[in-house]
Amino acid sequence: MSEALKEAQKAKEADEVPVGAVIVAGNKIIARAHNLTERLTDVTAHAEMQAITSAANAIGGKYLMDCILYVTLEPCVMCAGALSWSQVGTIVYGAADSKRGFTLIDKNILHPKTQVISGVLANQSELLLKEFFANKRK
Amino acid sequence: MSEALKEAQKAKEADEVPVGAVIVAGNKIIARAHNLTERLTDVTAHAEMQAITSAANAIGGKYLMDCILYVTLEPCVMCAGALSWSQVGTIVYGAADSKRGFTLIDKNILHPKTQVISGVLANQSELLLKEFFANKRK
Repeated sequence: MSEALKEAQKAKEADEVPVGAVIVAGNKIIARAHNLTERLTDVTAHAEMQAITSAANAIGGKYLMDCILYVTLEPCVMCAGALSWSQVGTIVYGAADSKRGFTLIDKNILHPKTQVISGVLANQSELLLKEFFANKRK
Repeated sequence: MSEALKEAQKAKEADEVPVGAVIVAGNKIIARAHNLTERLTDVTAHAEMQAITSAANAIGGKYLMDCILYVTLEPCVMCAGALSWSQVGTIVYGAADSKRGFTLIDKNILHPKTQVISGVLANQSELLLKEFFANKRK
């Protein structure tokens, strides 16, 4: 998760909402990504979406059942839907998203075999986001 | 919708699940896309996702509130989540998706201002999909 936080930090430096993600397979990071919605002018450019695409490219297959996604913020419905299609093995996320988190809609959006671990380095993840939005409001 | 069906036909010819989408703004088609999950080895490469990215690129902005998306199949949760972020004005879809359609989870995934029209050229859209999967099972 500390590697995902580094990605979130990169997003912050690029004036993007600071969310970062990495995907691990066999103890190796196969994808790193951070939010790029502003730079790409594209609402679909969330960290998780890019990480899924990048990881599939790295392993040469669409399905990520042997992979772990680490992401600093709870995935939104779009990302949870994408993670469902990917059949990702495990999702580890940091801060809960009280506005757009997928668990607000339905925890069963994910693939039934996907395991979820929440709250890992949640304080650091949340602090990055809070500082970012506090600066935006200044 | 007949233009979206043409896109779905292209998907079929490329041995992709035949779903097509177009996005219209001001009576002009600004984006065309069809499912490319196999060719791109990417579960996120649904017709709608590509159409959203392409339309945002065409108008130079992330938000599609003045646009209409036509898609031959009911969007899945991932695509509905993306359409929510895009704040698309109207979604017109063809066939209902009884397995992965977003309405099975929650109709409120979409942005509250998005209008939805369903069942347009649904028979043609469904026939394309049924024939595709029947051929796959042969």
